[in-house]
Amino acid sequence: MSSQLKTPLYDALIKHVKKRTISFHVPGHKSGRITDSKAKFLQQALEMDLTELSGLDDLHEPVGPIQEAQTLLAELYQAPKSYFLVNGSTVGNLAMIMAACHENDTVLVQRNCHKSVLNAIKLAKARPIFLAPGYDKELKAAGGVHFETVKQAINQYPEAKALILTYPNYYGMVYGLKEIIDEAHRQQIPVLVDEAHGPHFIIGGPFPASAVTLGADIVVQSAHKTLPAMTMGSFLHYNSSFINQNILEDYLHILQSSSPSYPIMASLDMARHYLAGYTMDDVQYLVKEIRAFKSELGEIPGIKVVGNGDPLKVTVQSQCGLSGFELQMKLEQVGIYTELADPNNVLFVLPLLKENQQYPLKDTALKISEILKDFPQINQREEIHSEPENISELAILYQEMDQYKQQTISIDAALDKISAETVIPYPPGIPLLLAGERVTKVKLQELHKLIKTGARFQGGAFLKEGFLNVFGGLKQ
Amino acid sequence: MSSQLKTPLYDALIKHVKKRTISFHVPGHKSGRITDSKAKFLQQALEMDLTELSGLDDLHEPVGPIQEAQTLLAELYQAPKSYFLVNGSTVGNLAMIMAACHENDTVLVQRNCHKSVLNAIKLAKARPIFLAPGYDKELKAAGGVHFETVKQAINQYPEAKALILTYPNYYGMVYGLKEIIDEAHRQQIPVLVDEAHGPHFIIGGPFPASAVTLGADIVVQSAHKTLPAMTMGSFLHYNSSFINQNILEDYLHILQSSSPSYPIMASLDMARHYLAGYTMDDVQYLVKEIRAFKSELGEIPGIKVVGNGDPLKVTVQSQCGLSGFELQMKLEQVGIYTELADPNNVLFVLPLLKENQQYPLKDTALKISEILKDFPQINQREEIHSEPENISELAILYQEMDQYKQQTISIDAALDKISAETVIPYPPGIPLLLAGERVTKVKLQELHKLIKTGARFQGGAFLKEGFLNVFGGLKQ
Repeated sequence: MSSQLKTPLYDALIKHVKKRTISFHVPGHKSGRITDSKAKFLQQALEMDLTELSGLDDLHEPVGPIQEAQTLLAELYQAPKSYFLVNGSTVGNLAMIMAACHENDTVLVQRNCHKSVLNAIKLAKARPIFLAPGYDKELKAAGGVHFETVKQAINQYPEAKALILTYPNYYGMVYGLKEIIDEAHRQQIPVLVDEAHGPHFIIGGPFPASAVTLGADIVVQSAHKTLPAMTMGSFLHYNSSFINQNILEDYLHILQSSSPSYPIMASLDMARHYLAGYTMDDVQYLVKEIRAFKSELGEIPGIKVVGNGDPLKVTVQSQCGLSGFELQMKLEQVGIYTELADPNNVLFVLPLLKENQQYPLKDTALKISEILKDFPQINQREEIHSEPENISELAILYQEMDQYKQQTISIDAALDKISAETVIPYPPGIPLLLAGERVTKVKLQELHKLIKTGARFQGGAFLKEGFLNVFGGLKQ
Repeated sequence: MSSQLKTPLYDALIKHVKKRTISFHVPGHKSGRITDSKAKFLQQALEMDLTELSGLDDLHEPVGPIQEAQTLLAELYQAPKSYFLVNGSTVGNLAMIMAACHENDTVLVQRNCHKSVLNAIKLAKARPIFLAPGYDKELKAAGGVHFETVKQAINQYPEAKALILTYPNYYGMVYGLKEIIDEAHRQQIPVLVDEAHGPHFIIGGPFPASAVTLGADIVVQSAHKTLPAMTMGSFLHYNSSFINQNILEDYLHILQSSSPSYPIMASLDMARHYLAGYTMDDVQYLVKEIRAFKSELGEIPGIKVVGNGDPLKVTVQSQCGLSGFELQMKLEQVGIYTELADPNNVLFVLPLLKENQQYPLKDTALKISEILKDFPQINQREEIHSEPENISELAILYQEMDQYKQQTISIDAALDKISAETVIPYPPGIPLLLAGERVTKVKLQELHKLIKTGARFQGGAFLKEGFLNVFGGLKQ
């Protein structure tokens, strides 16, 4: 493991910076020498914002420090091959799905997935079969997919070219992934996992097992979400006998900038280094800090700490009459910025602290206690939640949609029509209504509830005005 | 124009940073508080590396400072609508082409285009008709496309759904774009321009006119190439009655990270601000500096300054027996890093200096003079160059390629076969051989010459070992 102490890409950049060269190449800021008078904050990063110079390798044909940095990454995760991504887990999801399936191929997809998974299926013109997740009563949110659902889907669609899962979910909840992967592999179906929220799982207990360790074919991780990497920096791990590695790499080349950001890539090198140096002492310190934080939150009457997957994710459920959205806003007023609110919960993403690092967790708990002291404790009523069919299809496939006219009608008039737009409450970015899917009564109820509680949407441009786009008849 | 003094996105970030909030959201470095001990250089940038928090807007649904910053950008370029891109001009080219054409649509494409243009056509499964550029004898490189070629192509393919051009080329050379755009528009064909190297053209003389000003439907610009923006930061300008804006936006959403980088977006806001504040005095100062630099270079016997398009691009041609690649390496040994070398030339990208900024141009010329003082002046022989057909098609379309077997054979045995891989000498990233194109004698000669002079390639994994991938017969 001692080679994990190396940081080849970071070192190559430092070495170049120290040469104090004269730049006659892109980028236009010339290592930060030419900047806007106001833009001082980026100065340091600009020195590292270089391009494919001699000695700095090329992400799209790595033979030097980028190759070495990616090899160290693969060693850490014990994957045959790992890649740096500079366009987020979005591009990882696009590339892995496009590499796995062609036009009209059937793919099995966990319904509560990130929109990039659906976009990938759209680009590939594949035929998605959606697998409903279970409902977590404590969190009042969608959880993982059940083994029985996967088994049923595989029996029903043995020709499926991929099983696409999300693990963990946004709240850090996991499920029996090992059993599911083994079942899919028995049927020669590759398993693609969007593990955006789990790059730190490789540390081991108390964290859940990583999908890489559990044998998934391709795993995509947002290094920037829980590791100290810059935003848009992600990892992709490849370990498949089903999916052609060259085709995967082709899509990564096609879908990522031909001028990838060196600061982002260097931050990925450093994030791997940070993770590799995470010790048992660090784990113990972190667990102690989280336990104390949860215990302090647990004593505040207006909220309840729920969920028990990834220790870095702390979900707080309102018990004081405020919606999750309202509670989030109250926290922001005292400088506490959280990751996500839903109608019931507020999600805290904790830092992956090392033993020598402090974070104001105690102070945060005190502030929350102060905010909520005048709110009465109210037992929240049981949520009415939809129980979607275990396995469902689109009413119109992506590749057929062009043939239909679209019309904008009032939300309630959309009942039993086919939605022409995807409506995603965001975060967590899980589609409520997919383009091509029939608008059922249950879906309409959910939509009204979310609008009422103040959710933000992507898609559904006229939702707040009360309108939805649906498909009409065939074009002439 | 006074509103151009505003920097709404940068200001929103500063405002948030000054609040000194406690972060329980992504990214995992928590505004730079959690970093690897070695990674001090990114500290400042990490403070700005935030996410879609209250007040910071959302690139994919902008309603706040990002919307305002994009509106200021559109005002500066006098475009109806402009967009920030965070995945480079790569994603701009992909999105504009995918928005303009569908499967089997004919598109007219300038042959010496960036590989992202070809990748876009591949993803769209369109049918490309390639328009050969003229050959610039002075630069010994491909130039722009001739009006007559475009006119002939439009006559031959009036059903074309788009004309896709590159303007300027890597060396800053431009051509009669206005006349071409007008002709295409008369035939109801939208014009898409990869203006990666020309974001600063909007300054006006002495710079060439921007394709935005000349009426192109969509123009993509690498802000990071000549403006002080971070790498992967680009602009897209939309001004079309032919191409549906919603479809364009859909592709931008699909192909860019759902967690776009705030430092990159803020640097785009600042680059626009820098450009808007560029005065006539700045222009005069810059022109004077460039003229002096060229004049000093002109007195060095071993090189010749060639080309006359964009003043920021200075191309130096070897006259001393060294290849461009060798000359570039010699310059690097004294700390002068240039943008590009080809068999004959070395390209300098100069900074877009303002009056108050210094750059060691004089010192650079002195150093070059010193390096070359012992090299004899040798009149370079005339280059043998290929004159490709004005208008050409692929022998196998992208959507048919899956049906053919592939085989790896020696380069010389590939004569008259159909190449299964795209071979791109890089930079400048212009494909010599396209996948699906027949390997002619002239192409083989070019390939040997490039290998001999030490060019780097993307694609052609076994080229240096003497092998090329070609298509064989149909799969069983």
